[in-house]
Order: sequence, then C-alpha cells, then structure tokens
Amino acid sequence: MPDVAPELVTAATAIVAAVRGRRPLVHRIGPGVTAPIVANGLLAAGARPLVTDTADEAPALVRAADALVVGTGSLSGDARAGIPPTVAATRDAGVPWVLDPAAIGVAPVRTRLAHDLLRQGPAVVRGNASELLVLGSGGSGGRGADAVHDPEDALEAAREVARRSGAVVAVSGAVDVVTDGDRVVRVEHGSPLLARVTGTGCLLAALVGACLAVAPEDPVAATLAATWWLTLAAEDADPLGSRTPVGPGTFSVRLLDALDRFEPTSLAELTEGNRER
Amino acid sequence: MPDVAPELVTAATAIVAAVRGRRPLVHRIGPGVTAPIVANGLLAAGARPLVTDTADEAPALVRAADALVVGTGSLSGDARAGIPPTVAATRDAGVPWVLDPAAIGVAPVRTRLAHDLLRQGPAVVRGNASELLVLGSGGSGGRGADAVHDPEDALEAAREVARRSGAVVAVSGAVDVVTDGDRVVRVEHGSPLLARVTGTGCLLAALVGACLAVAPEDPVAATLAATWWLTLAAEDADPLGSRTPVGPGTFSVRLLDALDRFEPTSLAELTEGNRER
Amino acid sequence: MPDVAPELVTAATAIVAAVRGRRPLVHRIGPGVTAPIVANGLLAAGARPLVTDTADEAPALVRAADALVVGTGSLSGDARAGIPPTVAATRDAGVPWVLDPAAIGVAPVRTRLAHDLLRQGPAVVRGNASELLVLGSGGSGGRGADAVHDPEDALEAAREVARRSGAVVAVSGAVDVVTDGDRVVRVEHGSPLLARVTGTGCLLAALVGACLAVAPEDPVAATLAATWWLTLAAEDADPLGSRTPVGPGTFSVRLLDALDRFEPTSLAELTEGNRER
Repeated sequence: MPDVAPELVTAATAIVAAVRGRRPLVHRIGPGVTAPIVANGLLAAGARPLVTDTADEAPALVRAADALVVGTGSLSGDARAGIPPTVAATRDAGVPWVLDPAAIGVAPVRTRLAHDLLRQGPAVVRGNASELLVLGSGGSGGRGADAVHDPEDALEAAREVARRSGAVVAVSGAVDVVTDGDRVVRVEHGSPLLARVTGTGCLLAALVGACLAVAPEDPVAATLAATWWLTLAAEDADPLGSRTPVGPGTFSVRLLDALDRFEPTSLAELTEGNRER
Repeated sequence: MPDVAPELVTAATAIVAAVRGRRPLVHRIGPGVTAPIVANGLLAAGARPLVTDTADEAPALVRAADALVVGTGSLSGDARAGIPPTVAATRDAGVPWVLDPAAIGVAPVRTRLAHDLLRQGPAVVRGNASELLVLGSGGSGGRGADAVHDPEDALEAAREVARRSGAVVAVSGAVDVVTDGDRVVRVEHGSPLLARVTGTGCLLAALVGACLAVAPEDPVAATLAATWWLTLAAEDADPLGSRTPVGPGTFSVRLLDALDRFEPTSLAELTEGNRER
Repeated sequence: MPDVAPELVTAATAIVAAVRGRRPLVHRIGPGVTAPIVANGLLAAGARPLVTDTADEAPALVRAADALVVGTGSLSGDARAGIPPTVAATRDAGVPWVLDPAAIGVAPVRTRLAHDLLRQGPAVVRGNASELLVLGSGGSGGRGADAVHDPEDALEAAREVARRSGAVVAVSGAVDVVTDGDRVVRVEHGSPLLARVTGTGCLLAALVGACLAVAPEDPVAATLAATWWLTLAAEDADPLGSRTPVGPGTFSVRLLDALDRFEPTSLAELTEGNRER
C-alpha cells in the first residue's frame, strides 16, 4: 500500500486552518450524555456548537448553521421527532450533514431511522465497525456504543454503504478507515483511552461536521482532517512512553487542550507513513 | 466614570459569604448540554443545584427552592412545557428568578417564549449582547449561543429592557455590563477562555440565582457579586502572564476549583478600578 | 461491633476483578445532568455504559444488557415513560436492576414512581438518608439530591425497606451503610468532595449495577464492592494530609483516574477496621 497522497495532507492542513479562521457554526442533534464533550470539543477546535433537538426549532436553526451532525445514540423523544424535519431542511438550505448511526443494531427504532437517513444524502457517515455492518447488510449487531468488530471486518460494508449512498464513510477503531467507496485511507493514530471516555466517537463526527463546513466540496479531505485532528490530539494527550500512565479523567481534559493547540502545519510530518490503497 | 461604589463591593462581599453559609437551593431549568457545569459550578460555589424540567414536577419543586434560573438554550420539549408553570409558581411562592434568554433571535419558539417570560417579573435577566438586542427591540439576531456583538452595543437595549421589565440586566462579554436601567456598572475581569467552554454563561446565570437567593432585596449587588465571583475565578484559573498557556479543558477544571477557593474578602482589592457611571 | 467478615472482602475483590475482565454492559435510565459522569465512571471502572431512556427503545435494549440502573433524579418525560416498561422487561430477561430513588419526597410524581418501583423487585436500592426515610415511611422529605439526614438516622427505615422489598439497601453519606435487613455493614471511607461533585451518588448506583452484573447471586457483596471501589478511589483522589487542598474540579478528574487504577487486591488491606454488626 502506498503512502497517503500528499495532496490529501495539504488539503487537510488547509481545512484545519480554515476551521480556526472561519469558526463554522455546527448544529448537532444527538445524545445528551455526550453533548458536553461534543460542544467543548468543537469550541476547543475553534468551531461554534449549536446543540438543540426540538422538532419545533431545529429545522429553523439548521438554516443558520454551516453544517449539521445527527447522532442516533440514546435517541430522546425530542431527537426522534426533530431529526427527520431538520435533515429535510438541510436540502433547501444547502447545509452539508454527517450521519452518526450510533448504537444501531439491537435498537429497532434507531436502526430503521438510520436506514431512512442514509437515503437522505448525508455527506459523511461515521460509525464503528458493527454499526457499518448493520448499515451495509441491513442486518443487526452491536450491544452498545462500543465497537465489537475490527474496522477491517467492516471495510467491504463501508465501501458498499459509500457507493450506495454517495457519502464518504469513516469507520472508527484502533485503525480508522475512510473510504468513498473506491479510495481507502487508513489512519493509524490515536490512543486506547479514546475508547475509555464517553462521546469521543460523537466528537469525531462533530469535528467532521466542522471540517465539512469549510470544505463541502471535498468530503474525503474533510473527514481525514477531522480524523487526524482528533487522533493526533489523542497522541498528544496520551504520549507514547510517558513515565506515568494517563488516566481516563486526565485524558479527557488533555484531549480538549490538545485539540486547541493542534498545529495544522504539523500534519505533514505527523502523518508520514499513513497508508492508502 | 467614577469607580464602582464601595457599598456595592461591601454588599457583594457579604452575599458571597452568605451563599457559602446558607447553601441556597437553586432550581434550574435549562439546556441539558450545560447542566453538568452549572450543577458543578453551583456546588463549587457552595450552593445546592436542583436540576429538573418536567412540567409535572418543576412547579412543585420550585416551591422548595430559594431561587429559580430559567434558560432557553436548546429548549427541550420538557423545558418548553415546564418553564411557564414553574415561572408562574414562583409568584405565589415568592421565589426570585433569573431569565437567561439563550440563543434567541433565529429560533422562533424560544424568542416568543423569552418575550413572554420577560413580562412575568424576572428579578434579573442575563444574556449576551445579541440576545439583549433581540429582547430590547423585539427584533432578531444571534446565530448561536455566542456573542456576536459587543456588550456596549447592547447598552441602550439593556437599559430599555431593565426599565420596561423592572429587572436588573447583565450583558456578558469581554467587559460585563450590569444595569438597573439607571445605574451602569462595568466589570472588566475574566478570561478569553470563558468563551471556549460551553455553559459558562449558563453558569453565570445560575450563580446570579444563588446570590439572589440570599439577597433578594438587592438584585444589583447580587448580580455583581455573581459576575465578580465568576470572572475573578476565571482570572485565577487562567492567570495573566502564566508561562504555559492554559488550554480550555484544563481551564474548565480550574474554574471549578477557583469558584470553590474564592475568598469574598478579596473582592475589595481585586475590583479596584472597576467603573460605574 | 466486629470487623467486616473476611469472606465479604474476598467476594468484593473477586467482583471488582470480574468487572474488569467481563466488561458488563450497564443500561442506565436516569437524570441527564449526571449521565456524563456516570458513563465515564463506568468506562473508567472497566464496564460499558448504555445510556437511553425512550419508552420505544429502552425495553428492547435492556434485554441485551447485563444490569439495569434506574434513577428518578430530574425525571425527564422520556424517563418517566421509559422506566416502567424497561423495569418490566428485566423480569423476563432475568436482568438484575438497581433503584436509585433520587430526590423523592417533595416531588409528587417521582415519589409515587419510586414506591411503585420498589414493588417490582430491585436487587439493590441506593439512596441517601432522606430518600430512605421517605421510602421506609411512605412520608416525604428531602429538598434536593443532597442528604440532609445522617445515614444512621435512616438505618431502621433502610432495614424495613430491605425486609419489605427483598432488596439490599445502601444508604450513602459520610459513613455508608449497607444492609439486607438483617446484616448491617458500615463503610467509613470517602471524601467530603464526593458531595461537591454532581452525580457521585448516581455513579455509585451505576457501579453497583456493574458489580451486580457479575455477581447477581450475591447483592450484598456486589453493593459493598461498588461502595468500597468508589469511596477508596475518592481517598486516592483526595488524599488525607495532602499539602495543597484538592478542589472539586480537580477531584472529579482524579476520581475517574482512581477508579481506573484501583487494584482489587488492595481491598483487604484498605478495608481493615470496617465494621459489621
């Protein structure tokens, strides 16, 4: 497998810088339990969060936003009612949106909802391997928000979902995989602690939204920019070979600090060796 | 402009001490995304939070509370149903309350709600400049929870809202402005990081509630006490001239520590140079 | 009073190790304000959180879970609708569950709900003294989520609730009391800062759920294991005699780190002197 194309790294570098410069407004409808880390992560990255999910307000608000991020985790009654009209409103408004089909599989309502949403033209789908297997096969899987499969197991499902929906698909795991159905880029960065803090997958989806807001024409680069941003910040927050192990509480604080101080110009050096096929 | 009146500083000092001593119960109905920092900030300050928003319970609970804080941010279905009867219940119960008209402007439901609530006798209104411009003019503005205007731009709107409603109005920003429609006090403290952590505006409104609970007869001093408490704690958490810059994750942790260790007797010295006209 | 039976310590040691090894899926329906610390605390302990409360999904999801934890705090509309069918679903599924009757007393809806739920066979009830006095007497009490009574005052109420319901009852406070109606074990560990961070009582209930998931046949040992785990982690996070006092923000971060690094084999030494009657 060759190294990742240098123009993707260049594009991602410009995208991170543009998020900092343009401070996109990212509308998020998703689980309440992860809303604080999502909002704080967006603020740390330089974007502006707008967290709301009522059916009466969300469709009006999304017209003022630069991107929408929809997560099916927890699925409150408000979110269940608010997601469909808000997604529908993105079409007229020309607002790009990200689908995070969290915890689908066992849960009947959100599984059907995720399949429906996939037909509404998301620019990017971000999930873990078991969620992509459900989306790809129409089957079920997963017991919670955590990944029980390896991203590689879901590679064919992810490519199938990408080709069918036209969305870029990101599969999160120890190695993140990003594909548009044809190209496949692997991101081998991060920390095991990302799986020990609630909402880091939701935060990745939100960062994809922030990056997509400034580069709607290049969803592959936007998705990679967000994935590198979060996983390289995680390496900064939990450095390899640190003398004292970092605990999950400390890690979540440091992760926000690292998103804030991340230098986009460091991307070229830090992503050396990342592969693409 | 003369310095702020010494009796305001003396009153604020007594109010902070009284919050610590009497541990008021502050009932809060507002956005879920900021509920953790609001509850933890109230606990750090020495008050006791009561977070609930169901229409069936909130009116009963507010009767047991020492103050109510109502935020329109996010506006869940529960909050939308629960806010009006809970505010109505404060009247019989004699419980002072704070209105935080978050994110009004673009959002039609909460904008109407905020205009209605303003007529129900809040003791204090706390918002950013764009929100006060909406309240003052009946117009619209704002794209999210963040301030896009300078508080000074909203000064006349704030005074108009204060005169019309009888409430003390606090406009948050780099310089906070507190007015009862006649007096105007400016608070030039804080840190740019306050805008990089979600919910610090909500937390200010909640601290105003805690201070109002122990000094319902002096809403100007209560509002100033809360504003000084939060902004001086922010300076403690992000000291000027610190060698390594403080990140937003670390800042939010230190802010809670600083609210806890804040010494009310330090107010006189720390607020020297604060101006009033 | 004799020391706590050594076989309880041995059982608790095995339970903590089993949570780490088996990573139980803990379904939680409870207040949103504490959901982040509950989810992060479960992850730090090695368990997997599943946070959801919609009536349409929760009953299906609980069948995939290893334990259910129900909290009545805040009581959203979703939770009020979702709790009864989810608790009913535990019966067929054989999933053990924990009742956390938060903030009952003043609040009419949740007080009635808690009395109803007590008849549905919880394995463990975890509350503070005023909540247990309400459950025991059918009376009212409590103004918020905080304990206004000493656990010892609620001991007879706790034993009565245990005998009536068949549940193990844990009363939280400066000294935690665990009883099955007959045996009474006291846990004199923890930190005053546990009461200065929102959701530590909810987190204890969730940890009881995680421990119960791996030892459903021994709810006394499971409840003690969770209580020791949290209170000893609190002592690690806020050590006696530390030179600089720990603030509540720092404490909540360190508490998660301490849950993660807690060594079950240290239980025997650390619990020396714990009493049982």
